[in-house]
Amino acid sequence: MSQSYAMLKCYGSCSMSYGGHRPRWMSTRTTLSQKVAHDNEELRLRTPFIALHKPVEGLYAMNGGDGLHSYAQNSSHQRGVVDVAKPIIQEEIIIKLDIEQLYSTSQYNFRIADFGCSTGHNSFPAIQIIIQAIEKKIERERQLQNFDYQVFFNDQVMNDFNTLFASLPPERKYCAAGVPGPFHGRLLPKDSLHFAYSSCALNWLSEVPKAVQDRTSRAWNEGKVHYTGAKKEVFDAYSNQYDKDITSFLNARATEVVSGGLMAFLVPAVPTFDHSETTYTTPTEMDVLGSCLMDMANKGRLSKAKVDSFNFPLYFTIPNELKAIIERNNNFSIERMEILNNPGKHSLRSANERASYLRAVFEGLLVNQFGSGIMDELFERYANKLEESSHFLDPDNEKSIIILVLLKCTGDK
Amino acid sequence: MSQSYAMLKCYGSCSMSYGGHRPRWMSTRTTLSQKVAHDNEELRLRTPFIALHKPVEGLYAMNGGDGLHSYAQNSSHQRGVVDVAKPIIQEEIIIKLDIEQLYSTSQYNFRIADFGCSTGHNSFPAIQIIIQAIEKKIERERQLQNFDYQVFFNDQVMNDFNTLFASLPPERKYCAAGVPGPFHGRLLPKDSLHFAYSSCALNWLSEVPKAVQDRTSRAWNEGKVHYTGAKKEVFDAYSNQYDKDITSFLNARATEVVSGGLMAFLVPAVPTFDHSETTYTTPTEMDVLGSCLMDMANKGRLSKAKVDSFNFPLYFTIPNELKAIIERNNNFSIERMEILNNPGKHSLRSANERASYLRAVFEGLLVNQFGSGIMDELFERYANKLEESSHFLDPDNEKSIIILVLLKCTGDK
Repeated sequence: MSQSYAMLKCYGSCSMSYGGHRPRWMSTRTTLSQKVAHDNEELRLRTPFIALHKPVEGLYAMNGGDGLHSYAQNSSHQRGVVDVAKPIIQEEIIIKLDIEQLYSTSQYNFRIADFGCSTGHNSFPAIQIIIQAIEKKIERERQLQNFDYQVFFNDQVMNDFNTLFASLPPERKYCAAGVPGPFHGRLLPKDSLHFAYSSCALNWLSEVPKAVQDRTSRAWNEGKVHYTGAKKEVFDAYSNQYDKDITSFLNARATEVVSGGLMAFLVPAVPTFDHSETTYTTPTEMDVLGSCLMDMANKGRLSKAKVDSFNFPLYFTIPNELKAIIERNNNFSIERMEILNNPGKHSLRSANERASYLRAVFEGLLVNQFGSGIMDELFERYANKLEESSHFLDPDNEKSIIILVLLKCTGDK
Repeated sequence: MSQSYAMLKCYGSCSMSYGGHRPRWMSTRTTLSQKVAHDNEELRLRTPFIALHKPVEGLYAMNGGDGLHSYAQNSSHQRGVVDVAKPIIQEEIIIKLDIEQLYSTSQYNFRIADFGCSTGHNSFPAIQIIIQAIEKKIERERQLQNFDYQVFFNDQVMNDFNTLFASLPPERKYCAAGVPGPFHGRLLPKDSLHFAYSSCALNWLSEVPKAVQDRTSRAWNEGKVHYTGAKKEVFDAYSNQYDKDITSFLNARATEVVSGGLMAFLVPAVPTFDHSETTYTTPTEMDVLGSCLMDMANKGRLSKAKVDSFNFPLYFTIPNELKAIIERNNNFSIERMEILNNPGKHSLRSANERASYLRAVFEGLLVNQFGSGIMDELFERYANKLEESSHFLDPDNEKSIIILVLLKCTGDK
């Protein structure tokens, strides 16, 4: 154990110390994704199964633990999304779930999965909502008794499952299981799932589109870190990757979900791909973060080549695009599609709060590319830039949306 | 993140630094159980859900990561057990598993669970053995195709599931899931499991018997840390606790395992409760560790009261006792019971190797009671004491056994 501490001490300056009103046993933990980021050079040299230039599987996990920069402490934004979606999901379960069909055999287990659950803090209330709705339906229809629920919490391999498991509600009504791995592929057995859920996760791509990282490609995204304000070729590459990824996700779920099973997805999106000088969306904010990185590159604080070769693996769709991808898939019927008007935006009032939120989500990714030394400066610059720009000052100018889509597995497999 | 490192730096001296041929991203990690142990005082004060004097749920997890003192680096002993049990388990699956009965409905998923898997290094080969045997049976009987396997890896909440998930074999034939929680209670849905496995885990009690920690009880275990060489009342308290715990374990599995499902357990045990001056067993070795603690208490290196109030939550049964508990349970038929003659003992040749092995298993528990400062000294004293005693020098004097028991769920639920 002395070994661990000795090695941890080597990672540059660490003079900050927070009093901490959180239990130390959680807040002092360092997650695998943070570690990987720090040890990037070492990792590439020592670990044979990670090919050079290939992103580490699961590098995109949110910050673990419950420290200052953790996702757990910085995700009230996503929590708001669940609250708004709650009545719709409950109503759909009560109307649409055909329990007779699900249990034409003698099997009385009900399996639910949350794809992209992070450390669970927003997942647990969502699962509770889903189970309450199912119980209400059962009670109303006097259908089944002794219903056993099993919930699968999925996220990338690098996700902090230790924190997830330590945070499970003690009084839960279900058997809990963690499922590590990318949700763009198969994770669960065939016909084993009755309800699939995913919130604020389907905006993550399986990888950065190859073309935007290729110097010889027309989609080479020089001096930028995302598609906002970039060349059309960059946007197209992202859009194609999204189409491919959502299709893979739907195909995987089509195998896993039983015929008649429901899926509820809360998908971060934008109302339109057009840009405005007076409003902003999450992609616009990511562009600001990119411009901060370029400012730092221009001041010699980091290399411009590192900015050129870095791109965020995220895409924010529009409702019609998502609808078209689902309809083309043929495995599911769209039971309901609603636009939730950015329910979380008022939870992030100040520029500093928004910087903290973005840091919790993106730090692992950024540290992996740029090292941990520049993180404080980067997010300070980011908060300052938001504050300097008039249209970022008003949360009402934030035009990001959440698409709530409810699908039913049609069984035409 | 600076926060984490700053806090980690506070934990006393950490001058050791190992060159490390392991990937640093794993070896530098600190597990939750280690953290809890360090922060014990803080934890008791800050965390409302952990009652004073009550053991933290899951404190008994093995050392995580893959550092020098990790369970991963110090569990070849347990690995040997699996190798010896392999042909027997394979044979039983091929003969006894009634797949027709398991799948009288149209469900083609096969669910396996390993109870007490730690970070998985001994679990993965065991699971492979089980799946190979099932596939052989299917092939031989030309029964089913497109069989989807799902494997549940269970251990205490404090277990290092992050390391487990990062270590999963990339080319596995099954969907993997982690299941946190004590295996003495329910963990999986009713009738959801087809094969239950547990290796070197059923010697762990759910807690130290209350009476041996109670100053006013006749079973108060003053100056000792286990039942070996202690008063009869101490042994009886342990024996009763074991009976209660194995019964709870069997009841939980009886609910989870489908009728006709199999269970294979490798249970660390002793051939007899009698003691010998010329041979030794794991309980004898634990007694030596206890005497080292007392030596240190006598030298003022730690308080005697702390030794008095510490006891290992482990019990090593004898074959007839285990058989009687299972037969009394009525939910399972004993299909086979074999004594494996301590297959791992030759993997631990030197006193130092045996000290490292015991440290990987017990460090979390010991640090929680005595602090991390005395660990190096304690295990050095332990190795020295083994070397000084003539009968500990020969591995052939080690008389611990492993009971392999194969049960079938009778369905009389």
